[in-house]
Amino acid sequence: MREIVYCKPQEIEKKSFEIISQELARRGVRLPESQAAVTKRVIHTTADFDYAQTLCYSDHAVETARGLLSRGAHIVTDTNMALAGIRSRALAAYGGEVHCFMALEQTARLAAERGTTRAAASMELAAGLKGPVIFAIGNAPTALIKLYEMMEQGILRPAFVIGVPVGFVNVEAAKELFLQTDVPYIINRGRKGGSTVAAAICNALLYGLEGER
Amino acid sequence: MREIVYCKPQEIEKKSFEIISQELARRGVRLPESQAAVTKRVIHTTADFDYAQTLCYSDHAVETARGLLSRGAHIVTDTNMALAGIRSRALAAYGGEVHCFMALEQTARLAAERGTTRAAASMELAAGLKGPVIFAIGNAPTALIKLYEMMEQGILRPAFVIGVPVGFVNVEAAKELFLQTDVPYIINRGRKGGSTVAAAICNALLYGLEGER
Repeated sequence: MREIVYCKPQEIEKKSFEIISQELARRGVRLPESQAAVTKRVIHTTADFDYAQTLCYSDHAVETARGLLSRGAHIVTDTNMALAGIRSRALAAYGGEVHCFMALEQTARLAAERGTTRAAASMELAAGLKGPVIFAIGNAPTALIKLYEMMEQGILRPAFVIGVPVGFVNVEAAKELFLQTDVPYIINRGRKGGSTVAAAICNALLYGLEGER
Repeated sequence: MREIVYCKPQEIEKKSFEIISQELARRGVRLPESQAAVTKRVIHTTADFDYAQTLCYSDHAVETARGLLSRGAHIVTDTNMALAGIRSRALAAYGGEVHCFMALEQTARLAAERGTTRAAASMELAAGLKGPVIFAIGNAPTALIKLYEMMEQGILRPAFVIGVPVGFVNVEAAKELFLQTDVPYIINRGRKGGSTVAAAICNALLYGLEGER
């Protein structure tokens, strides 16, 4: 049986990231410097090294997203779990806010009217926000598909897309759809992702900004 | 590029579970009938088939947990994300409530006093709850370790433990510690787990109860 190692609370995270770096090195993975903090935080959140292979970044994605956050961009997410996990106080320090329209009565009504998912309906409501918005999609591919459709129709232009929905129906296709656009992104190819991954990416971007100050 | 398949909202989940069942069959995995709904919901939440191998159930775990929930057991979790994800209204129908003490000022103060994590301190606060409690630990091994210590000291006896913390430091050891006890459990061996997994297990237990009514 494994022994429990005594470790001060503030050391646990540091030690975890050291283990992640060592295991990445052992697997022969070299992450681009600008992406390393984000990818490692996702691995820290999931204990899943697959993300070192599947996370895709558009050119200068991390710099672009941090620039947006530093200028007060808002974040819209499709899950209340990601809403609970994103460091809203850190975001507020730059003027941003996290939004999730999933639990609203209005979203349920719109989804019923359209015969669509609440996640897709919530993206329509998000289109009403002013200023640049980072969309952090951690659950529903239908949210990504709706964003794409609204872009095609000229209704909306996301400033940035964090595309990490999870699942088995249209998840891979929705991500591939977005990889074709010229919207800056961090997208996880394949089926994996989730609310914790969406929140981890947002939080890694925020930690990086704080490190720069 | 993959095509997007049109699918009615209410069909997406059904289709997802069909795909999961097919892939499990193709991999030669046969889940025990009583556990199948819980394990499949975890795979649905993570798109990670590893859980079919690593989720461990004590004898009659699912029946035990459902019995507790049907009699109004409360759930305590160590993350605000799991708190946001657990179907609290479904739980309330049986008289239960979900609690997370992580964000309380009192928890931060107690953690500082003890030189421990907030997760461990939050378990001390949870020990004050009356009636049977299901502990759903989705993040911090220190919460599981604290529960174990309080059991040893005769301070607390969890009615059930959902042990799915995630990470690299003491995570495997804390889970193994609990596998030695006689507390009924659903525990994911290894490093993986997380808030979404903890919530998925709680929700699968609740869906199963609703199916029985």
